[in-house]
Amino acid sequence: MPEERKTIKDFKQLISLLKERNICKRTVVVWPEDSHTQESVSQAAHEGFIEPILVCSEDTEKGYVRQHGFQAIIAHEPAEAARKAVELVREQKADIVMKGFLNTDVLLRAILDKEIGILPKDTVLTHITAAKLPEYHKLLFFTDAAVIPTPTDKQRREQVRYIVDFCHAFQIECPKVALIHCSEKVDERHFPYTASYAMLKEEGETGAFGPCRIDGPLDLKTSCSAEAMKIKQIDSPIEGEADALVFPDIEAGNLFYKTITLFCHAETAAVLQGTIAPVVLPSRGDTIESKFYSLALASLISR
Amino acid sequence: MPEERKTIKDFKQLISLLKERNICKRTVVVWPEDSHTQESVSQAAHEGFIEPILVCSEDTEKGYVRQHGFQAIIAHEPAEAARKAVELVREQKADIVMKGFLNTDVLLRAILDKEIGILPKDTVLTHITAAKLPEYHKLLFFTDAAVIPTPTDKQRREQVRYIVDFCHAFQIECPKVALIHCSEKVDERHFPYTASYAMLKEEGETGAFGPCRIDGPLDLKTSCSAEAMKIKQIDSPIEGEADALVFPDIEAGNLFYKTITLFCHAETAAVLQGTIAPVVLPSRGDTIESKFYSLALASLISR
Repeated sequence: MPEERKTIKDFKQLISLLKERNICKRTVVVWPEDSHTQESVSQAAHEGFIEPILVCSEDTEKGYVRQHGFQAIIAHEPAEAARKAVELVREQKADIVMKGFLNTDVLLRAILDKEIGILPKDTVLTHITAAKLPEYHKLLFFTDAAVIPTPTDKQRREQVRYIVDFCHAFQIECPKVALIHCSEKVDERHFPYTASYAMLKEEGETGAFGPCRIDGPLDLKTSCSAEAMKIKQIDSPIEGEADALVFPDIEAGNLFYKTITLFCHAETAAVLQGTIAPVVLPSRGDTIESKFYSLALASLISR
Repeated sequence: MPEERKTIKDFKQLISLLKERNICKRTVVVWPEDSHTQESVSQAAHEGFIEPILVCSEDTEKGYVRQHGFQAIIAHEPAEAARKAVELVREQKADIVMKGFLNTDVLLRAILDKEIGILPKDTVLTHITAAKLPEYHKLLFFTDAAVIPTPTDKQRREQVRYIVDFCHAFQIECPKVALIHCSEKVDERHFPYTASYAMLKEEGETGAFGPCRIDGPLDLKTSCSAEAMKIKQIDSPIEGEADALVFPDIEAGNLFYKTITLFCHAETAAVLQGTIAPVVLPSRGDTIESKFYSLALASLISR
């Protein structure tokens, strides 16, 4: 009998799946000098789905690290910690990278470095979020809230590819991917990307991304509400229940992320994709919970 | 003693203010052939803040109009109704225009027509929304969810001017206006408008828009959460409690509108600004409540 593959619909089910499959990923944590990072790491280690390797200060090594019996590598400042962390990934000694208490720029510099970095040449780096909103019946994946200002056609194609892969990892057999725009009309003059949406839709139909249904331009309401779709008399394979949203640019993606976390009680998890190991890159304002879920997300999708 | 001016913090207070001031505006409703439009109009007329003039079909005149004892003008199709409506405004026989059951394009064609239209030459037409979110302690005004794809500097300046005027009409003495971007950094290369934000901020400081505090680029969280502002160690006159948000483009504005109505139980009211009379232009998916509040908003700001 084939293994039963039940769709993961929230973060609790994600944690259960990781346990069920005995997934445990070596996770290098860069400069974990703040209690938020430390707490999320301990929780994830306690749940058993990560094995942390901390690249930290001597003080943190003497305190937090010894207290928990974790592995650690001493660094003297954040940039050094970042370089040591990506080295571990390149040496295949770590499966996931997590940002601690340092500026994003400092970590990205090490990740993107042509000599020592972990982004293969010609590979698109982008950001994917999984969100659980109280008002939506399943997880909602979206891209890009943090990395690519205005995606080129090539970059958008990779965003679609990554997000479909994510959905498959969450055991969504044929994910519904909506290409978001403020309306349903292709308007090449004002919004050139709406024309490229049509191309992506066609590519999806030929099977370029594996099993999935892609449609766009669609607005958020039509994508996520069967009722709204009905009112607008639109016929779409998304059926008002998108699994994934691809936003036109970072302004839209970032705004959606911040609106749902600030005003909708959304739980979120996010990682960078494109690098040879997924990178958990929390914002300063993110909750411990969000960092913990991001580690879980990274553990599931890390190869 | 000066008149006490209490800030309007939600739509209930707006309705009370309209009653208190005995505001009643002549409102021409274009092609009100659907029950949603009719219901919102009757409600607003019943509350006393509009006096409806319906430009409608013979059937609607015989039924709905006579039943309520409203004024009506017969039209044979939507485009004719639109032309007759704008004519009433030009003849100063109506203070507000409301869209009924017709395509937005058809109404806009009449509004924007150089001969018969109601948008003065060189005047910027834009869209302003007032929203009450359960998770925010006051009304949140924003622009533009529906009209200008990518505002020019001139258009954005007018958006700021209009939205400050709106806030003043709601008796917010010194409104806090946040110019939204995905981060707090000016990045002229990727996001040219972040540089123009700095100019608007300066203009605000010289008093160009009347009493207000303008700041940006700021992200949504920093604009609307004092806690987020503190975590990011940002010092801004917005103080994490913006009254108004000016979005970089229509994708962001429209997405915010749809996210808060779909996922955050927001109540909203919206009008077009720039025309010689405010225009209520609901979407097909909008609730009766939202249309009713939009009429109230238009009544307050109509001169």
